[in-house]
Amino acid sequence: MITVHGFSPSGNCHKLRLLLDQLGREYRWNEVDPSKGETHTPQFLALNPNGKVPVLELDDGRVLTESNAILCWLAEGSSFLPVDSWQRAQALSWMFFEQYSHEPFVAVARFICGWTPLDSPRRADLPRLRERGHQALAVMERHLSTQPWFTGDNYGVADIALFAYTDVAGDGGFDLSAYPALRDWLARVRKTPGFVAMPDPDAEATARIARSD
Amino acid sequence: MITVHGFSPSGNCHKLRLLLDQLGREYRWNEVDPSKGETHTPQFLALNPNGKVPVLELDDGRVLTESNAILCWLAEGSSFLPVDSWQRAQALSWMFFEQYSHEPFVAVARFICGWTPLDSPRRADLPRLRERGHQALAVMERHLSTQPWFTGDNYGVADIALFAYTDVAGDGGFDLSAYPALRDWLARVRKTPGFVAMPDPDAEATARIARSD
Repeated sequence: MITVHGFSPSGNCHKLRLLLDQLGREYRWNEVDPSKGETHTPQFLALNPNGKVPVLELDDGRVLTESNAILCWLAEGSSFLPVDSWQRAQALSWMFFEQYSHEPFVAVARFICGWTPLDSPRRADLPRLRERGHQALAVMERHLSTQPWFTGDNYGVADIALFAYTDVAGDGGFDLSAYPALRDWLARVRKTPGFVAMPDPDAEATARIARSD
Repeated sequence: MITVHGFSPSGNCHKLRLLLDQLGREYRWNEVDPSKGETHTPQFLALNPNGKVPVLELDDGRVLTESNAILCWLAEGSSFLPVDSWQRAQALSWMFFEQYSHEPFVAVARFICGWTPLDSPRRADLPRLRERGHQALAVMERHLSTQPWFTGDNYGVADIALFAYTDVAGDGGFDLSAYPALRDWLARVRKTPGFVAMPDPDAEATARIARSD
């Protein structure tokens, strides 16, 4: 059986739970909390020297890091990864877009709102993060105004990668009302067979999000 | 014939030139200079709404964005992309590492040193960018101390992706003397058949780099 080392409120980790559940695969989940330093213990750094979750571990000890690379590996041979090489390249393109132009703004704004103190100096970054995050959401809206999915003709890994943090962008102060096609896509993803939502942040993070500007 | 829309001093763009030359593929190169606003014209945004180079364009008008997705598509069926799915996943993992944990620090420090004014407020970011960049270089050094390449058993797309900005990290103020395995790997890549180096920055950027702290 495979093991996922992950932090449940992390979108990057939730991507794997969502795909594994939709694939009907069995897996162990080992909760690792970065905010408690658990991604920088000697044991964890032996798994991933980059000190990040998620990490996929096979029973023979082999390890794969980076959420979107793990999605591609898990999805191989399934309907979640296009067979056509051009469509597969487009899915990959959206996954790189997610990690470079979306996650560092949409996910990081959420992290600052929920998981840093209300007087953290990092909160000064929020306006810039939101400006860049809205640029990414506008690019998604443009695509979704003509096509239903990011993974070629069907729901798949690129949709899962982009859904994770877009669905909880409100936690970081993003108002999605200007993106009707994107909101329709979020609703379509939520209706896919076997869909599982990300767990709500804990009470402390929820309280911080509510008090964030 | 395919067309690459790219900026020659950009490592993300140079990745494509390096792979295309090593594959012996013919291509057109259309020079697009982001520092002159050329990635935000209406024509360019019609190609890539995200306003970034490189962009690959086919003769039938189809377009692919994101340097590492383009590398994977171009390399399909060649020795530059592993056939084994686990090795291919590892190559992808390193390419996502490059875009998330390496490029935003190593490449952005170089961009600030060479392509922003000497009194730019962005220069205040350099110490933080260099600290994060060195973390990425240390992860690479650890891998390269036991294995010769990032793309499975052979040189390939992950090596090309990581080489691009690592080879010019000195422009951003990174001293590579603490990374002997990484320096050996850079030398191995430079000796691969068909290797082509990134062109030097122009005189203005070179002068700024020389005067950067």
